Amino acid sequence: MQESNSPIRVAINGYGNLGRAVEAAVHAAPDLELVAIFTRRDPQSLQTLFAPAVHVDQAADYVGKVDVCALCGGSATDLQTQGPQFAALFNTVDSFDNHALIPQYFETMNEVCTQNSTVSVISTGWDPGLFSLQRLIAQAVLPQGQTTTFWGRGVSQGHSDAIRRIDGVEGAIQYTVPVQSAKARALEGEAGDLSARQKHRRECFVVAAEGADRDRIREQIVTMPNYFEPYDTTVEFISAEELARDHAQMPHGGDVIRAGTTAQGAHQSIHFNLALGSNPQFTGAMVTATCRAVARLAAGGELRALAGAYTVFDIPPTLYCAQPPADLRRDLL
Amino acid sequence: MQESNSPIRVAINGYGNLGRAVEAAVHAAPDLELVAIFTRRDPQSLQTLFAPAVHVDQAADYVGKVDVCALCGGSATDLQTQGPQFAALFNTVDSFDNHALIPQYFETMNEVCTQNSTVSVISTGWDPGLFSLQRLIAQAVLPQGQTTTFWGRGVSQGHSDAIRRIDGVEGAIQYTVPVQSAKARALEGEAGDLSARQKHRRECFVVAAEGADRDRIREQIVTMPNYFEPYDTTVEFISAEELARDHAQMPHGGDVIRAGTTAQGAHQSIHFNLALGSNPQFTGAMVTATCRAVARLAAGGELRALAGAYTVFDIPPTLYCAQPPADLRRDLL
Repeated sequence: MQESNSPIRVAINGYGNLGRAVEAAVHAAPDLELVAIFTRRDPQSLQTLFAPAVHVDQAADYVGKVDVCALCGGSATDLQTQGPQFAALFNTVDSFDNHALIPQYFETMNEVCTQNSTVSVISTGWDPGLFSLQRLIAQAVLPQGQTTTFWGRGVSQGHSDAIRRIDGVEGAIQYTVPVQSAKARALEGEAGDLSARQKHRRECFVVAAEGADRDRIREQIVTMPNYFEPYDTTVEFISAEELARDHAQMPHGGDVIRAGTTAQGAHQSIHFNLALGSNPQFTGAMVTATCRAVARLAAGGELRALAGAYTVFDIPPTLYCAQPPADLRRDLL
Repeated sequence: MQESNSPIRVAINGYGNLGRAVEAAVHAAPDLELVAIFTRRDPQSLQTLFAPAVHVDQAADYVGKVDVCALCGGSATDLQTQGPQFAALFNTVDSFDNHALIPQYFETMNEVCTQNSTVSVISTGWDPGLFSLQRLIAQAVLPQGQTTTFWGRGVSQGHSDAIRRIDGVEGAIQYTVPVQSAKARALEGEAGDLSARQKHRRECFVVAAEGADRDRIREQIVTMPNYFEPYDTTVEFISAEELARDHAQMPHGGDVIRAGTTAQGAHQSIHFNLALGSNPQFTGAMVTATCRAVARLAAGGELRALAGAYTVFDIPPTLYCAQPPADLRRDLL
């Protein structure tokens, strides 16, 4: 196992909101050391907080100098390319969040890791990530039950983008909002037949171009199939200034609720809630904790990982923490 | 790793509320098989639900026939003796819950396991157990923050016993109740200076002997040092019939709340809540899931444990689940 006195050397690939959050979290951690930030852009153009920017074409020069690389590519498309590319060089951590493609991405990463003797943890963060972990543990303890996940109140980038593509829209942001009464039903174990509409509603704040037909824009939003039609959707028109002033944060969060009965019949419920002031900052914090775990998994110890791809489901939780196991048992058990 | 088609063979030591709950949970699990229930009592006298009762003196005959033994001894005193005794024979799981003695108990168990090539997980359940896991993960993700644990509304056996020892008391039950406003403060990260009184209150239901001085009993309760004096305590006198009718369940639960800031300054909160209709049934369910994990840890696989003592902090979460890892990734990640 990684000795606490030799810092874990971390590199970051990609320098958007997530990359910056990981940089700040790694810098704040006493047992982690920032080595480099890899970028596709001109490294000279990057205003990093602490670490040197290095062009991604030079990443291979860092093999042997980096214990784990956090892949902070801006989208699922980036990661599907960058994941295998980096896992051939380094132990990696990513927050691949296309749920439907996870099994296939896992197989690809597992193959690359096995061939290159690296360890990668895919799909960490909060969902997938912490929420997944809660769903798994809750199901393991209460096998007879029902799990419901709620998201929000928080910004959905995909829904915001969909509004921005409408003619006459100059800016937009969309908040996904869980319906409180649905949470109450989930805690009773009675959320199984809730429709999408009964679980979440959607709040849209839109900047319309001058002279644009607001009624038409509103109608196009609320009737948009899949994105908005299945939900109760409110549309409020605001100014560009209000959008910049009131909606610059990226709050998010949500709930994982499992309710069920134990074998002798008692009703039991498990409820995990996140209220996040900043989605990318929190995701970055979880990616950072996972970097620590991956470096230690790869370095060996009692529970040494073979080369391969893993998820939060496979990580002994103690590996997320900088503190020695005996201290964790004394203070947190 | 344990193949899903060869059931994990489980024995239980001790047949109180917890032992019965484990028996029911193991019986309900398709991948677990109940082998025997060890007891200090006359096995003939035990009305088990499904498994044969065997005198504890014959436990050693089951070496090689049991993959893991759930230690359900009725008290911490039992476990301090039974833990090492059984860990010399079997892989074990227990819910040792004397927080102050955990480090010492861990060392003892680790020594016995190492000498006897067994794997033991100590102190599982919900607190210690699931709550510990939440405390650890929350601290790992939000190193700058504050964790607060609330318990209840639920029965405290220790406090109920303390009331029963008062002269003139024929029966009693005590509920620990978290103060809602304190939870709100914890979510804001402002619970650090809350006193015991500000975090929990205590509700006592007491059956007084005929002719007993109720005012004196009430006074003795609310002024009892450590147990009640530091709290706002209410005392209600009820009949023996009411005690039996309204207070036979053992509900419990509570909250682990961590609030803090990520490195770039955003406020974030993590809140885990359990609302348990039956404390022993839920603890038994978690002990059962941990039995599965221990058997698989001991049997080997990608993350094989060396002989020794472990806690929930060390267990790769996937091992709690009967489902294959690929299914878990597809369905829960």
